[in-house]
Amino acid sequence: MAKKFRVGILGATGTVGQRFCQLLENHPQFEITALAASDRSAGKTFVEACAWKLPGGMPENVKDIVVQPIEPPLDCDLVFSSLPSSVARETEEAFARAGYPVISNSSSFRMDADIPLLIAEINPDHIALIETQRVKRGFTKGFIVTNPNCAVVSFAPPLAALHRKFGVESVVVTTLQAISGAGYPGVPSLDITDNVVPYIAGEEPKVETEAQKILGKLTDGAIEKADFSVSAQCFRVHVIDGHTASVRVDLRETATLEDVIDAMKSFPSLDLHSSPKQFIQVLEEPSRPQPRLDRDAGNGMSITVGRLFPDNIFDYRFVSLSHNTVRGAAGSAVLNAELLASKNMI
Amino acid sequence: MAKKFRVGILGATGTVGQRFCQLLENHPQFEITALAASDRSAGKTFVEACAWKLPGGMPENVKDIVVQPIEPPLDCDLVFSSLPSSVARETEEAFARAGYPVISNSSSFRMDADIPLLIAEINPDHIALIETQRVKRGFTKGFIVTNPNCAVVSFAPPLAALHRKFGVESVVVTTLQAISGAGYPGVPSLDITDNVVPYIAGEEPKVETEAQKILGKLTDGAIEKADFSVSAQCFRVHVIDGHTASVRVDLRETATLEDVIDAMKSFPSLDLHSSPKQFIQVLEEPSRPQPRLDRDAGNGMSITVGRLFPDNIFDYRFVSLSHNTVRGAAGSAVLNAELLASKNMI
Amino acid sequence: MAKKFRVGILGATGTVGQRFCQLLENHPQFEITALAASDRSAGKTFVEACAWKLPGGMPENVKDIVVQPIEPPLDCDLVFSSLPSSVARETEEAFARAGYPVISNSSSFRMDADIPLLIAEINPDHIALIETQRVKRGFTKGFIVTNPNCAVVSFAPPLAALHRKFGVESVVVTTLQAISGAGYPGVPSLDITDNVVPYIAGEEPKVETEAQKILGKLTDGAIEKADFSVSAQCFRVHVIDGHTASVRVDLRETATLEDVIDAMKSFPSLDLHSSPKQFIQVLEEPSRPQPRLDRDAGNGMSITVGRLFPDNIFDYRFVSLSHNTVRGAAGSAVLNAELLASKNMI
Amino acid sequence: MAKKFRVGILGATGTVGQRFCQLLENHPQFEITALAASDRSAGKTFVEACAWKLPGGMPENVKDIVVQPIEPPLDCDLVFSSLPSSVARETEEAFARAGYPVISNSSSFRMDADIPLLIAEINPDHIALIETQRVKRGFTKGFIVTNPNCAVVSFAPPLAALHRKFGVESVVVTTLQAISGAGYPGVPSLDITDNVVPYIAGEEPKVETEAQKILGKLTDGAIEKADFSVSAQCFRVHVIDGHTASVRVDLRETATLEDVIDAMKSFPSLDLHSSPKQFIQVLEEPSRPQPRLDRDAGNGMSITVGRLFPDNIFDYRFVSLSHNTVRGAAGSAVLNAELLASKNMI
Repeated sequence: MAKKFRVGILGATGTVGQRFCQLLENHPQFEITALAASDRSAGKTFVEACAWKLPGGMPENVKDIVVQPIEPPLDCDLVFSSLPSSVARETEEAFARAGYPVISNSSSFRMDADIPLLIAEINPDHIALIETQRVKRGFTKGFIVTNPNCAVVSFAPPLAALHRKFGVESVVVTTLQAISGAGYPGVPSLDITDNVVPYIAGEEPKVETEAQKILGKLTDGAIEKADFSVSAQCFRVHVIDGHTASVRVDLRETATLEDVIDAMKSFPSLDLHSSPKQFIQVLEEPSRPQPRLDRDAGNGMSITVGRLFPDNIFDYRFVSLSHNTVRGAAGSAVLNAELLASKNMI
Repeated sequence: MAKKFRVGILGATGTVGQRFCQLLENHPQFEITALAASDRSAGKTFVEACAWKLPGGMPENVKDIVVQPIEPPLDCDLVFSSLPSSVARETEEAFARAGYPVISNSSSFRMDADIPLLIAEINPDHIALIETQRVKRGFTKGFIVTNPNCAVVSFAPPLAALHRKFGVESVVVTTLQAISGAGYPGVPSLDITDNVVPYIAGEEPKVETEAQKILGKLTDGAIEKADFSVSAQCFRVHVIDGHTASVRVDLRETATLEDVIDAMKSFPSLDLHSSPKQFIQVLEEPSRPQPRLDRDAGNGMSITVGRLFPDNIFDYRFVSLSHNTVRGAAGSAVLNAELLASKNMI
Repeated sequence: MAKKFRVGILGATGTVGQRFCQLLENHPQFEITALAASDRSAGKTFVEACAWKLPGGMPENVKDIVVQPIEPPLDCDLVFSSLPSSVARETEEAFARAGYPVISNSSSFRMDADIPLLIAEINPDHIALIETQRVKRGFTKGFIVTNPNCAVVSFAPPLAALHRKFGVESVVVTTLQAISGAGYPGVPSLDITDNVVPYIAGEEPKVETEAQKILGKLTDGAIEKADFSVSAQCFRVHVIDGHTASVRVDLRETATLEDVIDAMKSFPSLDLHSSPKQFIQVLEEPSRPQPRLDRDAGNGMSITVGRLFPDNIFDYRFVSLSHNTVRGAAGSAVLNAELLASKNMI
Repeated sequence: MAKKFRVGILGATGTVGQRFCQLLENHPQFEITALAASDRSAGKTFVEACAWKLPGGMPENVKDIVVQPIEPPLDCDLVFSSLPSSVARETEEAFARAGYPVISNSSSFRMDADIPLLIAEINPDHIALIETQRVKRGFTKGFIVTNPNCAVVSFAPPLAALHRKFGVESVVVTTLQAISGAGYPGVPSLDITDNVVPYIAGEEPKVETEAQKILGKLTDGAIEKADFSVSAQCFRVHVIDGHTASVRVDLRETATLEDVIDAMKSFPSLDLHSSPKQFIQVLEEPSRPQPRLDRDAGNGMSITVGRLFPDNIFDYRFVSLSHNTVRGAAGSAVLNAELLASKNMI
């Protein structure tokens, strides 16, 4: 049995931090050895510091770890970060500079030209940006890799399947996002019970820009962004986990409905520990995908797509869904780390 | 004080039927004198027959009315109908033929060429179709007038404001619809708690066709439908009342954001009992409109619009909201009846 | 038309403060002339300072009032207070000392021996404590009057009806409390969606002690508490407004079910502006009372009772319900002010 | 590897039937070989007949089984039944008479004197009633064993722990029950959103009688019921899974709080496949147990208890919780079958 990588989690007590702990509980390659959180938590054991909010309870292996301040050094080989963007920029760079691979779920660096914005199945070649990054920022051993905004992840995979085969020209997406995306305490119950909120601070610009980078082409150590427009309207709805996207798309090349379905179904998965068997599942039932029934598909790592039809104005329309704190956050980061490990980058 | 019109309600025990009773409780022009419902209810008093589901309780004036079978004659001057579409077609025609003005919320006749599909503020001139209708169907005193699908009402008013001023070329709408739209028992709680359902049977085709008729031009006793395309995706969300629409629109003429806001705000209201002071309210707060906070604007008869911005792909985007069982159903029908009364049509 | 009392609201931007504004919008006796809130809000107009969360929107008459710091003097004849208990004690006493009648919804003074804990219909004679209070605290014109905890109000009225007629010996109450009781932001949506929380900080002791004072006897300027025991378990449930209480009660004297129903129904209401016609409504339908259907009974000022049966262990059991931010908070305070005004105390 | 028992499920398409399929998917002792449901479903494959409502999707091994009518013979060694009580009595007896062990979750036979009402950890000796039953009803190979009402299961285990050690004299229980307990379509969303319903048809009498039988003593082939009174008020709350019970209890012998906690914690679990490691978990956090966080404890087979305190009127009070469709229904039945298998009864 191989030696496991020792992992630190930055922002361990938050919603995504807890999901990291849960996903890494019995992971064959990673073992949590350090937990870092805000000053208020530092010095306490994790079980004292963290108000655990996930069903199933806190994993035994992290309960007694003493929470540390969020600064290097930490006793680990790499760090997963789910820091709020207000502190992520400075802190993550400090960890990278101190030699740690930083696998980040934060938004701070996502759109920086030298930072990979990875969905492991879609643009693994963007890892090459790490070299550019090291040169530019003077990192030696460390680096920063990010995963996309959780709402982007809910539709980027089917979009990638279409872009790869037929070219995407424009995308209109309306998202129905889960409350867990706002962390804890997050959305007040008085705001979302018997209600919908048509606004998530800062979300629409992220959704309108990240996909073009993810689907961009790596040339000479830089990403040339994909040339399509995105229009995004983002809503908070009363769902615990699972972001739903209502999507219309225009393609550059003609494609039949069968072609489109096939492009999605045949999009290859990876052979990594957290990879789902089927990356994109296309459901035929007229009322699917639904967050409560489908968010856990592929252990929360599959994207489910349904209601795929020709559209009156665009070429096609569909509904896609992903688990926002698994595939849309902690799970994507873990998969990115597995990808990097498979390429001996950590 | 003028004599009141005597009103019958077809489908009185249902969700919309109850809303009719509530809206007509103290109405200055209408007085409920007959309630008709399915055979199971007929013969009982309304208080025995109806499981009242609206806050505030059953109005006193209807409690002791004995429910009758849904067939003419009824002791009234006109009927409001909220029959399920399976029975509406035959029954409503029978009432019209028997001489009753039928103000219907059902979908059965909406798209028939000789039936007005009315939003009182938008296309009151379509009432002229009643003449066509009488000739074609051999009605003498009676007639049928309908109001649109509740989801259509959530965005048709701002669309009408834009169409009148700048011409609409295409519309993409994604609806987030309330559970009350499905009636009672309607949506099982196991289906909508912690969930979103991306499917409402028969809804998307209605949303994609009704607006063009409403905004159509009356020429020689017939409607020429407005020439724009609609793409609709319809979702059920966990909201009790209030349909939200996420809208993108392309216009035929150039319009500044200020023009667009002004077109909506200045769309005239009517001077009828149920008319709101402001037909279309444009809200500036970034997180509005919200169903729980805004559905009751103008006593549930105003449309609230927010998040009105230029769009990356279309000319503009916005979010609009209406109360689906008031403005989107019973309230619209009552307003239509008030309009007809003001024109001495009943 | 009589001159209106000029009213200040302490804690105006909170959930209960907003309810005060709503209830006083068209009040015949009171007119809001001052709004006070935390330093963060002071100096702004109310419309700028307050994130309004009640359906129907902010009343026009308060929008442009400039929010002031929470300290005397304020430009008004009396103050309503919904301050958090952390600051209420000191601040309310300061207002009373400065000559203002303080009608408080806060918990700070409720159990002080010289402070009336009023439900206007139940113990109006306790107003006499104001004299005791003035002597003890050296108030001249000012005084403090409180209303009970919102959970207590959900069952104290039927309890009072029974106590007055038959004597209460012991009460077991389990409360199912609405999220609005925790204010805003209050209960995180992640805590209450698909969930019940069996704990509300500090609540059970309040529920176990306040009723005995309310039902106590005034003798020689002091309250002799009623001699019964209360056992309370308090739950937060996923309801916006409306606290439900599951109650068992042992009586000192024998009473038939008919006696018990009659005692509740015949408990007299008052003849004040905010008094409901029927203080305690006894519902016969097996599935009532329900928060969504019954909280607005009597404009939110009635208590609804149902499922009243003999019990296997206690004499009787029943379910009672009140609107927690109306009858359980702002509405009770307004009614107390009306009572005091009717007795020329303000 | 031992040969597995071949299992049939009566009422397979319902909420509990689906849970049976899920729990038996990879069971080491049982294998589903027959699915029976109403005439509407019979003849279709399970995947066609059943609207699957549990997260995670329908197990592969049942998808292609052709649903049969609910009558013997079925191709299996024993049957699990979750039939509605209207048909359970006749049907289950027919299966038992035809030689099948019937492990039933239905209420029909629970209180019959010769039918074991089993919680495997509590009264396994009641299995001896099967002999009485065979004699009385003329069964040869077959028999009927039942598990309790789901609400009873939420508090009977801690009650059993106390009864065994100290004797229980009386119990007051108020239940907060999940919507899944009503099956599908079950509770309309309009009834439970922003609401609590204080009534579940037929529930309170079950809760007030079943515990005494479960905790009764087997003497001469008959159960002498435990001699305590139960008072039950049952509420439906907006929770998907997990029944919460608010309990007060009087004991016959004196017990310290420590004694009480110890009695619960030390109540032995069994060594069967579905047994949780800890039958009764006593939680110390003040806000636990909560359905969303604790219903899955012990894979949904543990009972969690919290807020255990001395009470003002009774000796002790506490809150207990169980997963109503696992421990409260299908899981209990499976555990009963494992118990019977371990005793070579099937």
